[in-house]
Amino acid sequence: MSRPVVVDSVAALRAQVHGWRRDGLRIAMVPTMGALHDGHISLIRIALEKAERCVVSIFVNPTQFAPSEDLDKYPRQLARDLDRLGLARADLAFTPTVGEMYPAGFATKVSVGGPAAGLESDFRPTFFDGVATVVAKLFLQATPDCAVFGEKDYQQLCVVRQLCRDLDLPVEIIGAPTIRDPHGLAMSSRNAYLGEAELNIARQLNAILRKAAAEMAAGADQKDATAEASRALIAAGFTEVDYVEARESLTLAPWRRDREGRLLAATWLGKTRLIDNVEVPSI
Amino acid sequence: MSRPVVVDSVAALRAQVHGWRRDGLRIAMVPTMGALHDGHISLIRIALEKAERCVVSIFVNPTQFAPSEDLDKYPRQLARDLDRLGLARADLAFTPTVGEMYPAGFATKVSVGGPAAGLESDFRPTFFDGVATVVAKLFLQATPDCAVFGEKDYQQLCVVRQLCRDLDLPVEIIGAPTIRDPHGLAMSSRNAYLGEAELNIARQLNAILRKAAAEMAAGADQKDATAEASRALIAAGFTEVDYVEARESLTLAPWRRDREGRLLAATWLGKTRLIDNVEVPSI
Repeated sequence: MSRPVVVDSVAALRAQVHGWRRDGLRIAMVPTMGALHDGHISLIRIALEKAERCVVSIFVNPTQFAPSEDLDKYPRQLARDLDRLGLARADLAFTPTVGEMYPAGFATKVSVGGPAAGLESDFRPTFFDGVATVVAKLFLQATPDCAVFGEKDYQQLCVVRQLCRDLDLPVEIIGAPTIRDPHGLAMSSRNAYLGEAELNIARQLNAILRKAAAEMAAGADQKDATAEASRALIAAGFTEVDYVEARESLTLAPWRRDREGRLLAATWLGKTRLIDNVEVPSI
Repeated sequence: MSRPVVVDSVAALRAQVHGWRRDGLRIAMVPTMGALHDGHISLIRIALEKAERCVVSIFVNPTQFAPSEDLDKYPRQLARDLDRLGLARADLAFTPTVGEMYPAGFATKVSVGGPAAGLESDFRPTFFDGVATVVAKLFLQATPDCAVFGEKDYQQLCVVRQLCRDLDLPVEIIGAPTIRDPHGLAMSSRNAYLGEAELNIARQLNAILRKAAAEMAAGADQKDATAEASRALIAAGFTEVDYVEARESLTLAPWRRDREGRLLAATWLGKTRLIDNVEVPSI
């Protein structure tokens, strides 16, 4: 099985990318935290439709985890990831250490407002600062022409778009549809934390959101529909609901019925936090 | 008199820069807020020693002014600035509007810690966020190989270096010596606010700092020497002293006698705030 070129320094990454650029090749990037699943593979497939070369970064970014979160137990499986990248025909894996990304004395933070307000930020207040900072760095290290992010992390996708627009980062951001198992469960590295009984509960998240979105599209009151979805999640066996909330799909401003909407949710199953989102068609 | 090419959109700036880059030319940038004086001209001279083309941005950046500060009365004199740029043989003037730099919905901030802590930040708490954000944008818009900043704004120079290192902005930062009038007064656009009597007071700032630095280098206690310098400033006619403080010259950490130091000061003359700094040799 062929594996991609693997580099762990910014200098080696830049040398490789500059070579491609000299040859006139278009370069796509797929930033990941590893533990690659079919969702990631679909991002690489889209990247290779948009560009001749695909760089995949694998970096479990400590600055986007709060001290209470799952940084230590987040799944790490580099050998398996590199096999999957080989099968997916990714060209380069960038696997920096924490010290390569954040050398001693590192002291800079990129903060995005707008779409970062509320939702995840209400429960993970420093999360998007960590995401925006590491994505800005990755883009400046790899200088891709485009980058592919999954719609599963919908708010993150909007935040990255805002980041690029605001800082004039010349990277085209491509959103990719969420990949789901046959029961509708969104692929996520954190699904690995779930036992069989929990998986069966988790599989109901998407159906509950789709039902609420359909009701809202058909005219149901927004507050009623989201409250009902929260109740249905608890009834299905979820431990706690962080939020179920409709937003405008482009700006993440509060949803108005005449705009394309997105219904977003975060919910807990024991110690595992799951997120998902679905479209709310305008009427 | 020849004038530089003037562009006010990011798209036109990029088109010009990409053309130069295609021709294999090295590009230097000098970010300014206009009201160009001999200090700026010396930065352009250094830029043209380091690169074949020099882009000068002229943008009075509102995000680095606090509401109480002099944004409205900051001197603006574009026609005169363009004449000076022509004489200095700058190739391109980038003169964006506030709307071009911060379009509706703009929501991103770059914050630098480390050398930004204390000194100016104690008195202008949002200043370096504004500087770091606009410099990151200017570098991503113009993609220069190097950029020249004056040592007169010494803490700013250190902050910009930290910004580039931390965000992997591939721009070499060159510090340029402060240009002074024959009496030692550092060139500054804000000197235009001073009347003749105030100018005579302002001209004593550098001598007072040089005296304190020489005493510290000769073994005087750091606290005694800076307190004495503050007293001397008030005795000379300055209205108020924000700080007189010694720092390590590279990191801006607290100064230790065995390291290269920098003595930095900010002081007021009526409504005008002046800054300056001098070297403190290690012993």
